[in-house]
Amino acid sequence: MSPSKPRRFRRLLLTGAAGALGTVLRDHLPALADVLRVSDRAPLGEARDREEVVPCDLGDAAGMLDLTRDVDAVVHMGGVSGENRFADLHHANILGMYHLFEGCRKNGVARVVWASSNHAIGFYPRTRTIDATVPQRPDTAYGLTKAFGEDLAQYYQDKYGIEAVSLRIGSCFPKPVDRRMLATWLSYPDLVHLVERSLLAPAVGHTVVFGVSANQESFWDNRAASALGFRPGDNAEDYRAEIEASTPLVGPDDPLVRYQGGQFTAMPHADDEPD
Amino acid sequence: MSPSKPRRFRRLLLTGAAGALGTVLRDHLPALADVLRVSDRAPLGEARDREEVVPCDLGDAAGMLDLTRDVDAVVHMGGVSGENRFADLHHANILGMYHLFEGCRKNGVARVVWASSNHAIGFYPRTRTIDATVPQRPDTAYGLTKAFGEDLAQYYQDKYGIEAVSLRIGSCFPKPVDRRMLATWLSYPDLVHLVERSLLAPAVGHTVVFGVSANQESFWDNRAASALGFRPGDNAEDYRAEIEASTPLVGPDDPLVRYQGGQFTAMPHADDEPD
Amino acid sequence: MSPSKPRRFRRLLLTGAAGALGTVLRDHLPALADVLRVSDRAPLGEARDREEVVPCDLGDAAGMLDLTRDVDAVVHMGGVSGENRFADLHHANILGMYHLFEGCRKNGVARVVWASSNHAIGFYPRTRTIDATVPQRPDTAYGLTKAFGEDLAQYYQDKYGIEAVSLRIGSCFPKPVDRRMLATWLSYPDLVHLVERSLLAPAVGHTVVFGVSANQESFWDNRAASALGFRPGDNAEDYRAEIEASTPLVGPDDPLVRYQGGQFTAMPHADDEPD
Amino acid sequence: MSPSKPRRFRRLLLTGAAGALGTVLRDHLPALADVLRVSDRAPLGEARDREEVVPCDLGDAAGMLDLTRDVDAVVHMGGVSGENRFADLHHANILGMYHLFEGCRKNGVARVVWASSNHAIGFYPRTRTIDATVPQRPDTAYGLTKAFGEDLAQYYQDKYGIEAVSLRIGSCFPKPVDRRMLATWLSYPDLVHLVERSLLAPAVGHTVVFGVSANQESFWDNRAASALGFRPGDNAEDYRAEIEASTPLVGPDDPLVRYQGGQFTAMPHADDEPD
Amino acid sequence: MSPSKPRRFRRLLLTGAAGALGTVLRDHLPALADVLRVSDRAPLGEARDREEVVPCDLGDAAGMLDLTRDVDAVVHMGGVSGENRFADLHHANILGMYHLFEGCRKNGVARVVWASSNHAIGFYPRTRTIDATVPQRPDTAYGLTKAFGEDLAQYYQDKYGIEAVSLRIGSCFPKPVDRRMLATWLSYPDLVHLVERSLLAPAVGHTVVFGVSANQESFWDNRAASALGFRPGDNAEDYRAEIEASTPLVGPDDPLVRYQGGQFTAMPHADDEPD
Amino acid sequence: MSPSKPRRFRRLLLTGAAGALGTVLRDHLPALADVLRVSDRAPLGEARDREEVVPCDLGDAAGMLDLTRDVDAVVHMGGVSGENRFADLHHANILGMYHLFEGCRKNGVARVVWASSNHAIGFYPRTRTIDATVPQRPDTAYGLTKAFGEDLAQYYQDKYGIEAVSLRIGSCFPKPVDRRMLATWLSYPDLVHLVERSLLAPAVGHTVVFGVSANQESFWDNRAASALGFRPGDNAEDYRAEIEASTPLVGPDDPLVRYQGGQFTAMPHADDEPD
Repeated sequence: MSPSKPRRFRRLLLTGAAGALGTVLRDHLPALADVLRVSDRAPLGEARDREEVVPCDLGDAAGMLDLTRDVDAVVHMGGVSGENRFADLHHANILGMYHLFEGCRKNGVARVVWASSNHAIGFYPRTRTIDATVPQRPDTAYGLTKAFGEDLAQYYQDKYGIEAVSLRIGSCFPKPVDRRMLATWLSYPDLVHLVERSLLAPAVGHTVVFGVSANQESFWDNRAASALGFRPGDNAEDYRAEIEASTPLVGPDDPLVRYQGGQFTAMPHADDEPD
Repeated sequence: MSPSKPRRFRRLLLTGAAGALGTVLRDHLPALADVLRVSDRAPLGEARDREEVVPCDLGDAAGMLDLTRDVDAVVHMGGVSGENRFADLHHANILGMYHLFEGCRKNGVARVVWASSNHAIGFYPRTRTIDATVPQRPDTAYGLTKAFGEDLAQYYQDKYGIEAVSLRIGSCFPKPVDRRMLATWLSYPDLVHLVERSLLAPAVGHTVVFGVSANQESFWDNRAASALGFRPGDNAEDYRAEIEASTPLVGPDDPLVRYQGGQFTAMPHADDEPD
Repeated sequence: MSPSKPRRFRRLLLTGAAGALGTVLRDHLPALADVLRVSDRAPLGEARDREEVVPCDLGDAAGMLDLTRDVDAVVHMGGVSGENRFADLHHANILGMYHLFEGCRKNGVARVVWASSNHAIGFYPRTRTIDATVPQRPDTAYGLTKAFGEDLAQYYQDKYGIEAVSLRIGSCFPKPVDRRMLATWLSYPDLVHLVERSLLAPAVGHTVVFGVSANQESFWDNRAASALGFRPGDNAEDYRAEIEASTPLVGPDDPLVRYQGGQFTAMPHADDEPD
Repeated sequence: MSPSKPRRFRRLLLTGAAGALGTVLRDHLPALADVLRVSDRAPLGEARDREEVVPCDLGDAAGMLDLTRDVDAVVHMGGVSGENRFADLHHANILGMYHLFEGCRKNGVARVVWASSNHAIGFYPRTRTIDATVPQRPDTAYGLTKAFGEDLAQYYQDKYGIEAVSLRIGSCFPKPVDRRMLATWLSYPDLVHLVERSLLAPAVGHTVVFGVSANQESFWDNRAASALGFRPGDNAEDYRAEIEASTPLVGPDDPLVRYQGGQFTAMPHADDEPD
Repeated sequence: MSPSKPRRFRRLLLTGAAGALGTVLRDHLPALADVLRVSDRAPLGEARDREEVVPCDLGDAAGMLDLTRDVDAVVHMGGVSGENRFADLHHANILGMYHLFEGCRKNGVARVVWASSNHAIGFYPRTRTIDATVPQRPDTAYGLTKAFGEDLAQYYQDKYGIEAVSLRIGSCFPKPVDRRMLATWLSYPDLVHLVERSLLAPAVGHTVVFGVSANQESFWDNRAASALGFRPGDNAEDYRAEIEASTPLVGPDDPLVRYQGGQFTAMPHADDEPD
Repeated sequence: MSPSKPRRFRRLLLTGAAGALGTVLRDHLPALADVLRVSDRAPLGEARDREEVVPCDLGDAAGMLDLTRDVDAVVHMGGVSGENRFADLHHANILGMYHLFEGCRKNGVARVVWASSNHAIGFYPRTRTIDATVPQRPDTAYGLTKAFGEDLAQYYQDKYGIEAVSLRIGSCFPKPVDRRMLATWLSYPDLVHLVERSLLAPAVGHTVVFGVSANQESFWDNRAASALGFRPGDNAEDYRAEIEASTPLVGPDDPLVRYQGGQFTAMPHADDEPD
């Protein structure tokens, strides 16, 4: 993000600001807003320049109503980001999403950009290139709650006119570290660019896109992201030799490479685990 | 259902048996099973011949685990069936669906036939004929929870092999009573026939169908129901003169006829209502 | 049309009322309206009961503005109905359509049902089954002006909210008389039924349908007409033996059977003909 | 076939006339032709009235050239009709098809109607309704040779203009005898009707259709057959009670009901069998 | 265009040569032809080297017949290029297109490359990425006449074999000047390149493409232009900071950014304006 | 191929190693395998370092069984590569493919990458951009045998789990030499890259791709190759001026440019040629 651009928003809300992706975005979003309100239930440290720190739990309806007051748009990175017990997923990703959008509806927030996940469609096989209009096929209870979030975003667009961009994030890490990520990696700079475009592109309605860099291998048709002006700059291929040297080759029926969701498709049910 | 057919199931579970549709099915499902287990949180009266009455609240995880024990298949008509406060919808249609499928997973139940709703796709305009593969567009919080149920059924099929048929029921009443139902009506005999076919058709995976009679007007391409062997026998057209004489004509932008979900698309948010 | 139905319209306008299809409809439309205004540039005889006779030429902008005043809906059968010199087609089918819709716009007419033609898509081969969403492929200057009419109807719907049903009429005759009509025939009773449904179906936006009976042979997917409640009752197959006995067999490359538009695809240019 | 219809062909060739389907057709095709030439490598008995008996092996190129001389059209039911050693399939269904179409090309035969098989697409799951444009997925070496035949028919149409109808026959028997046939059955009268329509419909190019009756259960979208004027009259549903009483229920992963090709998808490789 | 390439045409006709786009092309087309015939009804100045100046009004049938004599191909930039009174649009864009193609038919001209407009499809929302095969949705009377031109070009291809490329030009200006043009801009060099490829690509039949540079934001799938060998070199993104600094932000329901046609979708009817 | 990458295979088999493409690959495949087994029926010279030379005729079932023993994967460039007498095509491309896959099945070979051809779909017109899922339309007996090979590869994937990549090679030459190759050229470096990606990409099932460089002109949507990680580096456009200067312009109906298969679509039947 170029600091010379005019700041588009008076106040932006960033949730999940203490998480991995939230931390990356916390550094870059100030370029777009006069004030960045950051929130998490984990500690966020001191407020930086032009920042407001507002701790909140997603399950707290009244707190979420306060949190979304006087903001122009939301970047929602909060929630449970991986397979977990249903009670926890449900608290953060179902009730939390509902509280967030209810807050936006009541407070007149115009747009929400949020972290959905490729695990909302993880049971498609790699041999099928999909775009963002195929029916969801979640691969975990986690993915199921992300599918719910997408349906909810569609509903608030159709009924209440709130705009939303659902980012089906692939594998967002400093660099790709296994063979699947050669296809699914999203670099941090590309994440920042994608969030920026999702905030700034005009008239998005509810748009679902894949959060993925310009990887040489890919099974996602990301035309919808192009329509937002997204032009990723990184390519996981640059890490192929390193990955192939450090990770074992797997057969074609290994979940890591058979399904788009990779190992998530083979994860045991979290509620079956002993405490 | 012909009584001369062999009973296919040892024990069938019918939830929501005290509701309108459950009451209709309670009369007919005994033809298919040696024992019909009926459940509801509302009173069900005395157990009939070859019936077991097992009251249960959908929000009760342990109770739902017991309820689904030793059954071959489930006809799930339970849940909140209309727009309502989110807390109530969430209790019955989100947690309840999760408890039901968890019970089926743990107890090895082979198939679930359940009442989804056209309100999971209600924001499509009438001018577009849709089939069951388009993305969901719920028209109410109610429809949103039904969309969740469909996603969940897909997940349990892909991950755990439980078969399911999601019935997007149109307007299931003794007869059509408004102009929209000329297109969306599902007669009671056709409901019974559709549930029977959904239980008996082989290898359904997770199939989504529209629950609608052979109405002359229709904006749903119900090919997936044909693949189950569904051949509806009733036609709302027989009631046109009666309906047109008794109901006012509405303009093309009236939600009743503009969107597939009809008036639900214009319902106020239930949580905004005073207690 | 059942005379016992309530009359839906206060005043209906029927153009082209002296033509073949207009004559059929003139007998049946009174069941739907308190007053039927009939128009043509050819003589129409005396006004019948509950009829107004208003002669008008489609090329007369001021006359068309008057003609469309105080009517609820229009059944537009007027225009040149076959290949002809471009000047004549242009006068009636391009300027005439424009004058008609301008009149409707200025006078607040809610809906237009009009005779487009299969010749707007006549250059598709018979081996391809098409629905109403494929790009137009007119087979004559006549078909070209009908394609213009469909584009215009779409424009007035999108911009001004006027509803329209474009009827791509196949071969509307008392009975089929050549081998192509075994697939394209529209009987008079089915024409009347289709016009009625097009007038009465709710919220049609701009809908394009094929005007064709329930013929055993067919290369048109007429799902959009089903959505209006159209259920044709006639079948050209009943005339097969008669037609096959009286008409020669033609080879697969004969335009009569190669293209959907039949012989029109091979017609010489009308402007090349001597006067 | 009505005997009062004019006979359309001077001479028709029927191959495989000693087989099950050939025997059925041998009784009915005389209504369409002045002379029916019947052929098989098995004995055919005495020539009937207006019949020519010409024995021939499909692997005999010169014989096939003679066989196709002076005929207007061919109904090709010959070949190996079931899984078998590749050498036998190859002889009859690959070389035989090539010899047949070469004979037609050299002798100017206008059209070939032939028995392809649903086993050319047998590996599609039942939960997917397919039409005739999806890529082939053969389920056996037998199905593979039928897929070859369809490709070959397309080639001779595109390159040499020979018309062809490839009939993907489902299960053609006097009555359905297992649970899969409730969806795939083709009755003998419907076979005769389909062959007749395939011979008589104008301008078919190369058309692929499913040979299946009007069964209540179905996973095939047979629109292309409708375009030929095919209106099947039988329905396997009439035999459901009988079949369900006499055959065991199978689970959803049993090949009989999981894939469209049924048990063929699980057949061992014929070349692995001892002699 | 490289001057070292062989000149492909003996004589090219450029209409609308005095307009903005015509002026750009007048400078570059001489590289492709021995003689460039330029035409307009506005003054064109002196004939340049290897140029013929032939003034003509598009409404003049005889003049257009003369104009198209002895030319190999036409680049038709003439016509009314913006919303206007229907009489003017009709004169230039309906009658003019007809006269042009009639001239080409009678004079044996092989190909026409012409300026259609994105306003032929302007009523699609920005949230839908479209290609060139969706039904037209004109946003103005102007767009309606461009849709007519495309239908006419298809007709002359199917019936008379005249090749055509319809260029749905986005916003062709020296640089983008409003927020919509960040998605729709066509630079002058890309215009020249697209016209060149449209003239030189082999066997185009009738091809519809979008005239748009390689902008980062885009809602058009321009695969058909790639098939012509079009590789745009400019990107409106380079002007984003400048545009965002100089133009106001608009909300999602502003026609400028809601529909693909932008402000044209909200233009008043030109015939309603006082003279 | 970078020599620093780990060798992925213990032993690779390359058939057709004496042919044009085989010769190119013989130089590069050693980077991927400890041992490269090269085969052809033509002389292959001395075995190079880490090479095994095993001559074999594709028609020799027993020889092919030996040839495929102890190999991890196959690059099958063998077979007749152009129009020829059916007996020769059949021997190499039908029986040969069968023998190859039978060998792989019996010997447990995991994957086959093989040279199919654009002539399997050559009868599609250039004006239609196709992807790899459209039905095959072979343009020659040669193309027909390649279509058979693709069907066979699909069958061995579905039934026996052998992975395969069918490369529909365009025009693989040192440089493009006619106007069609401006769209269909595959450079040698891009061939090597495509074969490498086809061998190394995980979980390919049976994937069909186009073997074509990044040419500016193109009528193939090669998304399936992108999913393998294919990023071609060459572009036939670099040779345009040279080709246009040295080859004649052809009209739009010339087979060279009308159909995707070019001149193959107009080749006479090889069996009609005198010996």
